[in-house]
This record gives sequence, structure tokens and C-alpha cells, in this order.
Amino acid sequence: MADKLVLLDTWPSPFGMRVRIALKEKGLNYEYKEENLREKSPLLLKMNPVHKKIPVLIHNAKPISESLVIVQYIDEVWKEKSPFLPNDPYQRATERFWADYIDKKIFEIGRKLWMTKGEEHEKAKNDFIECLKVLEGELGEKPYLGGAKMGFLDVALIPYYSWFYSYETCGKFKTEEECPKLVDWAKKCMEKESVSKSLPDSEKIYAFVLQLKRRYGIE
Amino acid sequence: MADKLVLLDTWPSPFGMRVRIALKEKGLNYEYKEENLREKSPLLLKMNPVHKKIPVLIHNAKPISESLVIVQYIDEVWKEKSPFLPNDPYQRATERFWADYIDKKIFEIGRKLWMTKGEEHEKAKNDFIECLKVLEGELGEKPYLGGAKMGFLDVALIPYYSWFYSYETCGKFKTEEECPKLVDWAKKCMEKESVSKSLPDSEKIYAFVLQLKRRYGIE
Repeated sequence: MADKLVLLDTWPSPFGMRVRIALKEKGLNYEYKEENLREKSPLLLKMNPVHKKIPVLIHNAKPISESLVIVQYIDEVWKEKSPFLPNDPYQRATERFWADYIDKKIFEIGRKLWMTKGEEHEKAKNDFIECLKVLEGELGEKPYLGGAKMGFLDVALIPYYSWFYSYETCGKFKTEEECPKLVDWAKKCMEKESVSKSLPDSEKIYAFVLQLKRRYGIE
Repeated sequence: MADKLVLLDTWPSPFGMRVRIALKEKGLNYEYKEENLREKSPLLLKMNPVHKKIPVLIHNAKPISESLVIVQYIDEVWKEKSPFLPNDPYQRATERFWADYIDKKIFEIGRKLWMTKGEEHEKAKNDFIECLKVLEGELGEKPYLGGAKMGFLDVALIPYYSWFYSYETCGKFKTEEECPKLVDWAKKCMEKESVSKSLPDSEKIYAFVLQLKRRYGIE
């Protein structure tokens, strides 16, 4: 039986982008279904009844949810081509630790960069830059976070690159000035088609952020 | 070289208990170091500079942090004895999904059961029971959450059993009445020495909770 893959996603989601990159890296074809999060489809509600969130990958009618779980699943099912996680258990643990760090920090702090004002906004800005510096430290002199080639941790972080312009503009800072090596890393990742074709244009994301700001009444 | 294992932990931590169970299930000897979280040791700060949190497992001088990352690491290094994660990628994804669910919900909602009052407390109580029911649904008719034998997901959840008495007492409900099958599952897990020897006495946890309530001025 040919594998049938369906991805429930929304275009600006960094979590969804992870799955798109993973699927493309493995050379897998899939059907993309854009969800409207203000009017979730019966399919999404059926496939992820617990969190009711995208992304959901449906593989031969069986759903998998939570982006890092999905990326690991894809890596384990199609393990021959472009393995994401290294074989060494310590390196695997290290990548899982940092992917979890990204999940605990970036999205939420990033959200505060465009959602808040005043002191809270200043704190978010400092926290955000601090996070990026920590990740830049983890990158060190390696070409990729995963080492010599793009791996699990790169897939976990690179989607946020499409949000950097929005974070920078709302936070009034320049990632390139704060973390030049991290920006070099991001540009190197973007040379891969799996990444560049999965990430929306930064200005399109910014227009989306402005739309959200208007919707929530944040000037 | 014989493996040297050191665990930085605090006795009431459900996250630490996960690691204790995993180490015992694999039959590994380790040195246990109790941390004082109000005065963290230089070793903890050095070994987990990012989060500065327990548990940290130090394996031959190399630190691993975040309990679910550690449990997977232990499973991958000592894979022969008592494997925690199944071989099938879909089952692995399912267990990872639910372990993540536990991490996103139980501790935080449980904390609100003894930290809050009034409406917030009522909401926490309802949310907590709802979570347990969801997990009971996932258990279904299986003997363990992992299926026929205790696995990753069981290791992730069972530590909270030692906190149930505190949650129940603060929340004024009976887990056994709300989720009898989940309590049966917990009792079955407790028959294993790896679990019963890793979980502190429920009343000792409750005394600890009362101490915390006094410290934070919550009557």
C-alpha cells in the first residue's frame, strides 16, 4: 500500500513548518490542508480531540499530534533518508533537551514581543535576545545545531527564522547584531529547499502579526 | 570502565521519581544526591546551567536534564533490560504524545489545587479530574498505559500517585471514585519494587505540601 499522508496545518505556524520541513527532507509527498483556527474543521477535532491543535499528520488514517512528536515519528518510520536524530544516545538526549528548551521559551516569549507593551515588553525583548544567545552558544562553531548536517534541533528551531522579522520589528532590535552566528546558521539552513519551501515570506508573517494586533486591539 | 551514575534530585519531585524508577527498572546502581532547591549546590548549577532544575542524571561526568529526556536516554543506553518505549513508531509517538500531555497538564493543575482558593481552586479541581479521566480513557482496558507491560508512559505518570492524597485532600475529592481504573493501574504499578521504592509515602508528601502552604501563607 502506498503511504497516504495528510497534514492539517496553518501557514504561519512554526510548529507546522517543522513537519513540512521533515516531510520534504524525507522526500515524502503529502496532502496539505489549511485549517482555519477560528472555525476548526470536523477532521481536526476528530484527529486531535485532546488539544484540538495543528499540526496533525495523518498517516494512513492514523493521526499523530505535537510537532516534535511528529518529526520524531517521521524520522523513525522513514529512517534511511536524511536521519534527523543522531545514533549516539547522549547526542540524542542533547538535541531533545534543546528542542524542549525551544518549545518552553521561544513561542511564548516571541508572542509577548507583539502582544505586550511597556515593562512587560521590555522584559520579553531581553528574555528573547537572551534565549537566542543561549542557542547561539549551543551552536558554537558547528555548521548546524545538529553538528555537521541539519538535524532534529535545526528542524525544531529554523521555522522561527520566518518570524524573526516580526519579532525584530515589534521588539526594535536586530537579530543580526545580537546573534550574527545564529543568523548565519539560519541562512545556511535556508539554502536547503526543504526549508526555504516550507517557510513563508517574513513580510507575509509580519502582515499576519499586524492583523492579529488589530484583532486584539494592540496598537 | 564501570558506569558512574549520579542523580541530583529532591525527594518529593515527581520528575525525579521518574528517573529513580527508570534506573531501578534497568537494575542500575547510582549515587543519590538530595538538593536543597532554596540553596542549589554548585554542582547542580554547573550541570544544568540552563534551567538550574533537578533532576539531573550525571553519567560518567556528562549531565542529562529534563526527566523525560533522561528516561529516554536511560532506555536507549541500557536497551536490553525492560525496554520502556515500544519498537513500533506509531506506538512510540502515542506514548510520547501522552507523556507530553502529562507534562503540560498534571503538575501545573495539581499545584493550583493546593495554591489557590475560590473560583480558581474549583476550576483546578474540575480540570484535574478531567485530565485524569482523559488518561483513564487512554488506559482503557490495558493493564498498563504502555500495554501489556509497564513502559515509558507509565514511568511518566506513576510518580503523581504519591501526590494523589495531597491533591485529593486539598481538592476535596476521591480519585478512586472519579477514576477507579486509574487507581487500579497505579496499585498494579506499585507492586513493582522499582516503583514502590522510588515513591515517597503519600502522607510525607502531604506534610510537605502543608509546609509549602504555610511558607506561601496559604491557609
